Amino acid sequence: MNKLILTNITLACFLAVNPASASDLASATYSNLVGKSGEIQLPADFRQHWVHLGSWVVTDAKAPGHGFHDVYTQSETVKAFHDTGKFPDGAVLVKEIRKLGSGKLTTGEAHWATDNAVWFVMVKDNLGRFKGNPNWGEGWGWALFEAKNPKVNVSKGFTESCLGCHTPAQKTDWVFVEGYPTLISK
Amino acid sequence: MNKLILTNITLACFLAVNPASASDLASATYSNLVGKSGEIQLPADFRQHWVHLGSWVVTDAKAPGHGFHDVYTQSETVKAFHDTGKFPDGAVLVKEIRKLGSGKLTTGEAHWATDNAVWFVMVKDNLGRFKGNPNWGEGWGWALFEAKNPKVNVSKGFTESCLGCHTPAQKTDWVFVEGYPTLISK
Repeated sequence: MNKLILTNITLACFLAVNPASASDLASATYSNLVGKSGEIQLPADFRQHWVHLGSWVVTDAKAPGHGFHDVYTQSETVKAFHDTGKFPDGAVLVKEIRKLGSGKLTTGEAHWATDNAVWFVMVKDNLGRFKGNPNWGEGWGWALFEAKNPKVNVSKGFTESCLGCHTPAQKTDWVFVEGYPTLISK
Repeated sequence: MNKLILTNITLACFLAVNPASASDLASATYSNLVGKSGEIQLPADFRQHWVHLGSWVVTDAKAPGHGFHDVYTQSETVKAFHDTGKFPDGAVLVKEIRKLGSGKLTTGEAHWATDNAVWFVMVKDNLGRFKGNPNWGEGWGWALFEAKNPKVNVSKGFTESCLGCHTPAQKTDWVFVEGYPTLISK
């Protein structure tokens, strides 16, 4: 009996301490962040617990992407990308776009991130899980959330709301990896 | 005997799974990243394993801080700051400054981080550990590393190499916390 308890605790300890495998990543993503019909949720607390891939800043107030863009993913995704050069099934990318703070600091005229504006979320799907759902296609689920209600995906479907901007990155699986030192640095 | 093993494994499991306490953070920092006479090292792999606090961008090529600044710390530091509003003993801040990539993307004219340039490191010291060492003072250890040799701290001492830029942030413990949504967002 004690041996059984010991084995179970050791197993639980191993699972808790060691990074999830590729299939664990997909299981976690599709059970925690994606509903049965493909409804995508915005992950909670990703700034505290996920890995920062890189950031973009667009200072022109009239540009479509005006703001500070910080991009995050799970640690397992970074490890898998370093091993294979590809995003694994269940990878989630969150691009948090915040308003710009700007001012003359000791560094010179600087820009930084202030209030939340919107979040774009991509969920890697190697199995074509949600055929016919307008938020899924080209190997990803696509979603858009606004600060005024982060629980509602307001994307009008990925072809209308997402591909227009992402098409130049089609050859790198629709992701602008050149801005992500955490992925591409050796 | 089995009970003893079980207790030890449970304890080991608890310690491995749960975040380090405040004193564990200081022990880890001062045993792994700071030498006996206060020599500060650049942490390895912080982009993969630490928390992104926020970023700054300075686009003017003639400004002293030209480049993309990404700032990271340990997860325990974020938790302690959320609990107390202060940086805990052993907190380490790494500001990685990279060269700027810039171009007209689908978002509009954008800037992003490319090659490494320099790293500024701050190590919180509540005990005044290294009195007389020119890299320690005002409650922190201060260091500067360059990409051409990231093992050598090239700071000329914190009063000459660091305080000039950090003085405007003296009231927030010498750190420009307003640019760090991960710390200050509720």
